[in-house]
Order: sequence, then structure tokens, then C-alpha cells
Amino acid sequence: MKAVTFQDIGSVAVLETPEPEILESTDAIVRVTRCAICGSDLHLYHGDIPMMPGDTCGHEFTGIIEDTGSSTTLKRGQRVVGTFHTACGACNACQRGEYHLCSSGAVFGYGPIYGSLNGSQAEFARVPHADVNLRLIPDDLADEAALFTGDILTTAFGAVKNAKVGVGSSVAIIGCGPVGIMAIQSALALGATRVYAIDLLEERLHLASSLGAVTINGSSTDPVGQILALTNGEGVDAVIEAVGGPRTILLAFEMVRPGGHIAAVGITAAQTFEYPLMQSLMKDVTFRIGLANIHRDIDQTLELVRTGKIDPTIVISHRMALSDAAEGYKLFDSRVASKVILIP
Amino acid sequence: MKAVTFQDIGSVAVLETPEPEILESTDAIVRVTRCAICGSDLHLYHGDIPMMPGDTCGHEFTGIIEDTGSSTTLKRGQRVVGTFHTACGACNACQRGEYHLCSSGAVFGYGPIYGSLNGSQAEFARVPHADVNLRLIPDDLADEAALFTGDILTTAFGAVKNAKVGVGSSVAIIGCGPVGIMAIQSALALGATRVYAIDLLEERLHLASSLGAVTINGSSTDPVGQILALTNGEGVDAVIEAVGGPRTILLAFEMVRPGGHIAAVGITAAQTFEYPLMQSLMKDVTFRIGLANIHRDIDQTLELVRTGKIDPTIVISHRMALSDAAEGYKLFDSRVASKVILIP
Amino acid sequence: MKAVTFQDIGSVAVLETPEPEILESTDAIVRVTRCAICGSDLHLYHGDIPMMPGDTCGHEFTGIIEDTGSSTTLKRGQRVVGTFHTACGACNACQRGEYHLCSSGAVFGYGPIYGSLNGSQAEFARVPHADVNLRLIPDDLADEAALFTGDILTTAFGAVKNAKVGVGSSVAIIGCGPVGIMAIQSALALGATRVYAIDLLEERLHLASSLGAVTINGSSTDPVGQILALTNGEGVDAVIEAVGGPRTILLAFEMVRPGGHIAAVGITAAQTFEYPLMQSLMKDVTFRIGLANIHRDIDQTLELVRTGKIDPTIVISHRMALSDAAEGYKLFDSRVASKVILIP
Amino acid sequence: MKAVTFQDIGSVAVLETPEPEILESTDAIVRVTRCAICGSDLHLYHGDIPMMPGDTCGHEFTGIIEDTGSSTTLKRGQRVVGTFHTACGACNACQRGEYHLCSSGAVFGYGPIYGSLNGSQAEFARVPHADVNLRLIPDDLADEAALFTGDILTTAFGAVKNAKVGVGSSVAIIGCGPVGIMAIQSALALGATRVYAIDLLEERLHLASSLGAVTINGSSTDPVGQILALTNGEGVDAVIEAVGGPRTILLAFEMVRPGGHIAAVGITAAQTFEYPLMQSLMKDVTFRIGLANIHRDIDQTLELVRTGKIDPTIVISHRMALSDAAEGYKLFDSRVASKVILIP
Repeated sequence: MKAVTFQDIGSVAVLETPEPEILESTDAIVRVTRCAICGSDLHLYHGDIPMMPGDTCGHEFTGIIEDTGSSTTLKRGQRVVGTFHTACGACNACQRGEYHLCSSGAVFGYGPIYGSLNGSQAEFARVPHADVNLRLIPDDLADEAALFTGDILTTAFGAVKNAKVGVGSSVAIIGCGPVGIMAIQSALALGATRVYAIDLLEERLHLASSLGAVTINGSSTDPVGQILALTNGEGVDAVIEAVGGPRTILLAFEMVRPGGHIAAVGITAAQTFEYPLMQSLMKDVTFRIGLANIHRDIDQTLELVRTGKIDPTIVISHRMALSDAAEGYKLFDSRVASKVILIP
Repeated sequence: MKAVTFQDIGSVAVLETPEPEILESTDAIVRVTRCAICGSDLHLYHGDIPMMPGDTCGHEFTGIIEDTGSSTTLKRGQRVVGTFHTACGACNACQRGEYHLCSSGAVFGYGPIYGSLNGSQAEFARVPHADVNLRLIPDDLADEAALFTGDILTTAFGAVKNAKVGVGSSVAIIGCGPVGIMAIQSALALGATRVYAIDLLEERLHLASSLGAVTINGSSTDPVGQILALTNGEGVDAVIEAVGGPRTILLAFEMVRPGGHIAAVGITAAQTFEYPLMQSLMKDVTFRIGLANIHRDIDQTLELVRTGKIDPTIVISHRMALSDAAEGYKLFDSRVASKVILIP
Repeated sequence: MKAVTFQDIGSVAVLETPEPEILESTDAIVRVTRCAICGSDLHLYHGDIPMMPGDTCGHEFTGIIEDTGSSTTLKRGQRVVGTFHTACGACNACQRGEYHLCSSGAVFGYGPIYGSLNGSQAEFARVPHADVNLRLIPDDLADEAALFTGDILTTAFGAVKNAKVGVGSSVAIIGCGPVGIMAIQSALALGATRVYAIDLLEERLHLASSLGAVTINGSSTDPVGQILALTNGEGVDAVIEAVGGPRTILLAFEMVRPGGHIAAVGITAAQTFEYPLMQSLMKDVTFRIGLANIHRDIDQTLELVRTGKIDPTIVISHRMALSDAAEGYKLFDSRVASKVILIP
Repeated sequence: MKAVTFQDIGSVAVLETPEPEILESTDAIVRVTRCAICGSDLHLYHGDIPMMPGDTCGHEFTGIIEDTGSSTTLKRGQRVVGTFHTACGACNACQRGEYHLCSSGAVFGYGPIYGSLNGSQAEFARVPHADVNLRLIPDDLADEAALFTGDILTTAFGAVKNAKVGVGSSVAIIGCGPVGIMAIQSALALGATRVYAIDLLEERLHLASSLGAVTINGSSTDPVGQILALTNGEGVDAVIEAVGGPRTILLAFEMVRPGGHIAAVGITAAQTFEYPLMQSLMKDVTFRIGLANIHRDIDQTLELVRTGKIDPTIVISHRMALSDAAEGYKLFDSRVASKVILIP
């Protein structure tokens, strides 16, 4: 089969690789219908996270059940979306609902540190613990609409939930890239009534505005001053940092109200930042950063997409054949593309 | 192997039956070291719940791993306690943490309505989804001490938790049989600072008192009046009904404070009771009855037993050989025994 | 001033009464701009709850601050909505957030059992603990839109919350009167993606449908069968009973999924109902009925109304002068009117 | 009356000052029976937080009601403990339970930044919103035992709660000064079954050990290595940082398990620390620092003290007359005293 394989830093290639086979009775083989290039794939592409040359990349995918082990309840022909990380459903972490901390978890196509599991930018993918790590796509939902529930949509949604956003909350979203846009949609779906979107690019803010956010262009105004002015000087209940830089994280502390929450979901390359300890002491701020717990939230995001409350496809800029993946990675890495879908 | 088999209403017999074998890769075979007769086994014994003649009874057990399917992480020789009901860990209910509502769940030795799964009052038991449905017993804990975490201790603990008992709560426990005693221990372990134990028998109340409960003998005093007198007329935050009768459930509504919770855990034969609707409307009472979610709470109860905060063995009245099970059922059914342990 | 006064069973009259005055430093006097006749006012009207002849009725109101005690932070001229029940903000119940259980709480215009507090169907009303029991109406919100946040909207919203409805929940609402309609809106605002509305009258169902509910006419079909058919035989996560009859409460138990919640918010005259104990034991159902905790939720409902997510004014059928209140009560009692607004 | 007044940096003096009087109908005057010098008083003493010369210090106190405004429910002669910060019970923050963020809140004796409220190291203190900010001391509890529920005990308890400690949790407490000791007691009272206490001083660790903690002397061993060794390499569910230094906060990140919580309660002079962003991203850590919400938790801590589950008096090293306060401050500042009680 064809698969997108890592070659070297800055280089991927679509090659013929062996088709996956059922190894455990809980496995399923999925014929991939849609896969995507994720911002986190660039960590491999840039060599920040080690990847074995020749290994298959990718962890966002939908597909059709092709084959199943004897212990799964899935049936050949069913349409499914995969979670980007796997979980066993049985270990202590899984049984307390922390699927992202599964003792035998792995990330598809993310190298030896993350479990050496073959990726899903390919014609077929083997999914361990398939009953746990796949969700049926509702009949009235296109594959492409379901695709991001297995990764960036639910990542954004989970961060917004972790920041305790609910009915009537005020929320600032820093950064309106694909994850930020999905954070805006998630905040609104969770009942936030005041969503402020901050970015430097007008076209991104335009999209944010169309979703219902009040937009603040950080290149022309002081976003902290704007947020305070819009909230009677109090700040917002929650801030979602969706850029990744230490500088934008520090803005979050300025914008959040006393007693508020900050969740960082931007993909960062920074090892540390200067946490404003004294300021937080006075304000009682809670700060959280961490990988997403997809299994906890994916049923909710699927429902939100199914009922049209969230449309994650609006972030897609490019659709291309799987065989053009090398070009797709280049467009995405150079920021010409905001989100690339690959069609096997 | 020897196994306790259902023969007819009011009759069990220890017979030779085939040893269980691994059927699925997620199975384990457990060599049983301790098993118990549970109050709910009497439903089968009395014919209230249908049971096939010849089938093996029992759902409370500890043991040693004898054999495992290829997909389990358990090892031969490990000491384990089983959950009375099984769960798959993968279905929607399991993934939202409602293991007691697993779409393919069953109860060991509890007849066709509950999944036709062979019981554990036997020398060996087959455990499906073994990684999900067994817990390792800590090294410093005897089998007998761990035994009830798989059933009545965690049932009681879960009911107390469902009634929102926490640090500083006041709780009334109606009925001081084995489940009531464990509810008292659970309430204290969860931080309740005022635990009132109600029963008609002085010996049971004596045990409750030794655990730290304030006791009320319902045969000589009005328990509702007593509770109100002890709580400035307000009533208690939570009531755990551990008898089962409609009459005692109604007492709970009299004793609970406005805004309080009632959890019924007594094994009832009553189909209905006269819910005090108008009274509850004024008081804002929450009422819950339901089978226990063992997997949600068993790690906590194991820790409480391991650290000596709860000693569930105090309810054991009889220990006998598995081969004497017929006698054990008789003693238990006639209330001569409060809790019978069978040793294979 | 003019005030709607109770005369006798089935009789109210608008009479001249003394204007209220500041009695405590925490009081405010509100010049009433809108008030409403509530379903619960009919309990007084029918003599089910005792009321002193001559006393002023009513507990749903908006107004303008006319005068304040020295300890309040409110200012003359501010537009406010009142909570139907008062709370002190200081007692144990209030400090644990249970404002509806305030040790010195009262209900406006609801007789001696509920604190002998004068009602708000009048030109002026005295509001004790005004900072606690009044909310500023946002500038961009009309009085009439804010009116129900102090009572039936927040009652419905609170019941839906108590039933643990959240993003992706399925909910059945039994009864599409004003409270049922607001429960539908609340469920959607809280993220429910499948809302089923049940009633016997097509016009009510038409309104429910326009809000986004799937409607079921109980006069022509079996609502339980319909709900089960629509949920793969599982039932819904939550049922809101908004009729009040024991019969409809029993339907709720048939419709709710295992592990689900039932909240009863219908105004009942029944003292008891036959609680399906055994069925609930198998299903693990939580049941709650109780007066609403307005203070807990009113800020959220005000935000939902302000942002147009909920429009509570759609239930208003009649607007009339305060002086026509006697006619208003008659229209409402005879069900000609679904909701009557009185304008002083 | 006599009062401990701030004179200059490093200098307090007991002087005659005017007795306080009722200013608002919600005030009470308390005749102080016990007060204490708090670690946070040293910030004033050192000049880190501005204080007006001549103003009265102190915010930990118990006393007897001497006089009350017309709107309070307290009675002359009642024994009470005060909360270190005041709240109104009526503003938005209070009504959502965030009493520490009250819009008109103040700290007793803590200077103009914290509301210019006279302190309680005096013979009498005026308490605003007395019903909100005082708690009755149970009859069977000595003043001295109740004293710390108004400040450091509940501060420690709240931090442990904020770190989501519950039944079966594993917790590391860094620092065994008075606040650390109370964090140990709080963790145990909340159900933690593995509490690890870390300090450099054997005498402090001896006390920690006597309470049930496993102790680790950070001067002779690597505390991170020890914690990991004791938890199968996983780390603890929660870390309470009770020292204040950036260095000890960084240890917390090394010790906490993936998915765990860190609450910092040590009084810090550091403005910032180098937050380990990348490490936290991988581990999904939640970090919180902030002033305590006494009103949320004081009823629970009072119950724990009343029932002997927590004995906060063990941290008291010195008791002296109020008139000797200057000496008390010196002993405390020089760390000769661990906790000083002043008796008016």
C-alpha cells in the first residue's frame, strides 16, 4: 500500500509499504478515507521529536473497517474516526478516565518516544484496542466533518473544558489558527456568551468574527487593555492560549480575572516561561497545559459536529491526493496552507 | 473441580464440574482462594431471580492467576480480587465511567438475566476482560481483607459517595447488617463527622458504636425524632438506607435535611414505595437507588482497607470449606450467619 | 399605592395599600415595572396554600430602584429583576450556595408559611437583603425579557442542570407549558443535542418544534415507545417532568436510560406517587424534586437571555394593566392565558 | 484598649487605641480572647507590604461577641472565630462562592492595599458583615483549637482540596512549617492514604511522622528520587508546596505524576519562577497558587478540629500576653518561635 513515510528532517515520501495485519484479537484494520497533516507532525518534520526513517507518519484519520480481530465488536464496512492517541481501556489510568495517560498508550506515527505505532497517512492503518480507539461516524456526517474529532477539535474542546468554561463564561482565545478557531467554536458550544478572539492577521480574525467572537487585532491595539475595557476591568473567566509562545502565555495572566483559569494548547517549542508567581498569588489563577484526553470528550464533539453546532471543516485550506503528501507538508510548513487533507 | 451449583429453590450442592478454560485472549483463569455468600445470592436461592439448575453460583472472590489469554497484562501467580460484575472497558458506558452499565456486562453466577456467566464459588473461575475486572491485591493485604472490595464494601462505599458524603457531613445509616456496617466505615472514611447508626438489634448497634457511630435503637426510640434532636431539628445531610423495606426508605425522607441526599442500598423485594412527593418538593431531596459501579471505586476501597481505615472482615461470622457450602447457605438464609466465607 | 391583594379563595382585588418603606439598612424599595402571574400563584388562589386576606400577591417582578437602605450598594434609578425567594447571603445554607434553603428566606407574596413577605404585584415592593436578592438588568435587555430569570426560567434551567444535562445530552421534556418550554430552551442552551418534547396539544408542540425540539404528541402515540425508538432502545440521559401528575412522573422512569436523571419541576398537587423501586434499582436512576435555587443560576440565565440564546417572552400570552389583575387571574386559572404580564 | 500597632519596619508596639464601635448594622464588636502572629504578618513587619504607622495589626483571632448591629443574628456572649479576610456575601463573587474575591473584601490589619481594616491583635475588633465573617465555636471546642480555622489551617486545607486530594490520593508536602503540618493533617483528613513530608529539619519531620506522614529529609537524600522510588516511578497525585521558594516549586513538578496537581501555599517573595512548560505539556499538570477562600472551607475544618481529626494546636510554640507582642514578633521573625499566640 501507499504510505507517507518519514525520510529525513524536512523530507517525507510516499512509498509502497506492507499492508498492516491483525496482530491482536482486539485490533482492527481501517481502510483510510481521509487523513490530515497536523501541526504536531511538524515536530517530526523539523526533527524536534525523533522519528525512524521509513516509518509511516500521521495520526488524524477516518476510514472504513476492513478487518477485525476476534474480540472486537466492530464490523467490516463501518465508518470510523480514530483517536490520535491509543488507550487500552483497562489500566488504572484508563479506568479513572485519564485515557491520555494510558500505561500502554501510543500516538499513531509519532516515533519511538510515543510507542512506535505506525501512522495513518496511508491506505490502511492497524488500530490496537479498536473498540476503545475508534468511534463510529454517524450516518448523517461526512468523513471530513468527523475527521478532527479524533484530534485538534477535541484537543481544543478539552482545553476549553479544562479551563472550566460553561454557560455564561467570558473567554479570551489567543491565536486564531486552526486550534484557536476550534477553541472559539468549543467555547460557544459550551455556553460561553462572551468570546474574545485575538490574532495579528485580519483574515483569521474575520473568520473568528463570523463564528461569533469579538475580535481584537493585537498588531494595532493592546489586547490586554482591550479585554479589560470590555470586562469592566475584571478580565475574563478563562483564557485559551493557542499560539505556543511564552509571550502569549504571559498575556493570558494579564487578561484572566481573579479566580480564573488558563489553559495552554498552543504547540510550544519553549522549554520554560517566567511564571508570574506573585501576580497569580494575588489573583488565584489556575494554569494547565497538557496533551488532550480525546476519549473523554470525543463523543461530545461528534455530537456537536453532527448537529451543526461546530463545523470544523472551515479550517481546511487544501485537499490533495495522498501521493502528493510531500507537497502538502511543504505548503503546511511554510504556512501557505492552514490545514491539509490527504485523500488516499 | 468442585463448584457450588444451584439445584432448585432452596437447594445448592457442591459437585464436580469441568474446569474453565481461556475462551478469549482477554480472559484469565483464577484459582479461587476465598469466596463468600452474598445477600444477593439469596435472590437466586429463593427463586426470585431465575437460575439454571447445575450452574455455578457466587460472585465475591479472591484468587491467584492460574492462566491468562494472550492479550492480558496479568501474570500467573498474581493475587487478585474480582469485581462482582464484569465490564468490557471499551463500550460507550465504560468509556464514560459507568462500568455497571457496560453493554456486555454480566454478573458472575447470577443466571441468564445477568449474562449467564459461571460463578466463582468454585475452585476456579474464568474472568472475561481480566485486566478490567480483576485488581491486584497489595502485598501487605490478606485475601480475606480484600475480598469485599469486589462487592459489598464497594457497594456500600459507592452509595455513600452517591449521597455526596464528604468532610464534615452528617449521615444516618438505617440498618447495621454487613452492608450497613460497611456504609458506616465508608462514611467515616469519606470524612463524615457525625454518623448515626440505626438498627433494632443491640449486638449490631454495639458493633456500629465501636466503629465510631452514634447509635439509635429503633425498637425503643423514635429514630426520626432522635435524628432531629441530634441535628438541631434540621436532619442529616445524607441517609443510607441499608435494609430494603419501603418503611425504612420512608424514614429516610423524614431524617434527611432540606437539600440532602438519600441513597438506597438495601436489597429490596418491594416493587414500589409511596414516594413523598410534596414533602420532597419542599425539601429538595435527591433520591438514588441502583446497582453499584465497582470499577469506579474499588481502587479507593482497596487503599482504605490496605491502610487500615476500613476493616471489612469484622462482618464475617463463619468460615467453612467450600464443600460445606450447602450448610453455609442454610446458616446465612436463616440469619444465623451474618457473613459466610467459603474456602476452596 | 395599588396592589393586587388576596381576598378569598378564587378572588383577588386591586386595592390601595400603604407604600413600603425601608425597614433594614439592607433593604431596597423597587418601583415595579413588570410583574407576572405565576402558576404557583394559583395554589394561593385555590386555597391550597394559606394566604391572609388583604395581603399582596406576586413574586415575579422587575423594577427600578426607588430607595435604598444605608448598607446596600444599589443606586436609585437602576433597573433590576427580583428573585422570587429571598436569601440572606450569610447563613450556613447561603454560604454553601443553597440559597433556596436560607434559614431566614421567604417568598414574596406567598403567605405565612413562606415568611409573610409582601408580594410584588404592586406599584412598589420592599426587597430585603437587596444586594443578594436583586440583579441589575443589562442595558441591552428589556425588563420583560429579564422578568422570568427571577423565577420560572431559572426554575426550569436549574432543574435541567440538576438533571446533569450537558453538551451532547439527550433529554425528554414532558409537558410544554411555560415551564416546559423554558426547560427546552435551557436544555439546548446547556448543550443538549437531542431534545424530545412531549405534550397532548399540537399548538404547544408547534412552539416546541420551532425551538428545535423533536416533538411527540402523547395523545396519538405512545411517548415511551417513541423515545425508545429514537434512542436505539436505550432511553434518554435526562427527563424533565413539567406537568406535575404522578402519571407523567412514572412515564419519566420508563424513558430514562440506565444511569440517567429525572428532575420533576411540574407543580403537583399529589402528595405521593408509586416510585418504581425495583426498576430503578436495575437502572440506577437518580430522582430529584425541589424548589429552585434562583441565586445559583440567575446570572447564567440573564446571560443566556441577553445574548438571545433563550427568549423567555415567547410564553407570554397576555399583557394587561395591574388594575386588571382580577381578570388576569381568571384568564390564567381557566387556561385561556398561558402567561399574564401585569403592568403597573 | 490595648492594641498591637505597626510603628516602622521591624517594629510594633502595644499602645492604647480607641475601642471600635458599630458603624454598620451588619457589624459586630468582638472581645478578642486569642490572637496569633501569622507568617504573612511578617510581610508588613519587613515592609514588603505597606502599612500605616499606628494602625493595628493581626488577622487571626477568636473572641466573644460584645456588641452587634441591628441586622446581625449573632448574640452578645457567643464565642466566635473570625475569618482573616472579610466578604460581603452579596456581590457576584460571593454569590458564586468565591468569597476570597469579594468586591468589597478586606484583610484585618493588613494595610491600605487590603482594605484598611483595623487588625485583631487587640482587645476588641470590629467585624464587618459579621454574620458572614464569624463562625460560632462549638461548645466542646476551646478557642485556641478553633483559632486557626480562620486562617492557616483552612488555607492549608483549601490548597489540599484545590489539588484535588481525596480518598486514596498520594500527596507530597514540601515544607513542614506550621502550614505544611496543617497540609499534612488536611490531606489525611481528606482521605489521602500516602502522605510524604519533606523538610530539612529532623524535628519538623519528627512531628510530621507522628501525624502519619512518611518523611523524607531533603538535606540527606534526593526527595524527588525518594518520591519516585516510593511510587513505582510514577510520582504523586498531588504536591503541596509550603515553603515558597522557586526551587521547591520546581521540585513539585518533578514529583507529581502525569495528570497530577500542584498547589503552592508557601508565602513567597519571588516574583516569578521558570515554569517547566515542555515537561508539563507531556505530563498534563495543573498548577494553582492563590489566596485562600476561608468561607468555602471553614465549616469543614471546624468539624475536623471538633472531632479531633485535626489538632492545629500542635504548631503553637509560644503563648504570651498581648502586651508582649513586640517580643513575640521578634521571636517569630527570628524563627525561634514557630507559632505565637497572644492573649489579651
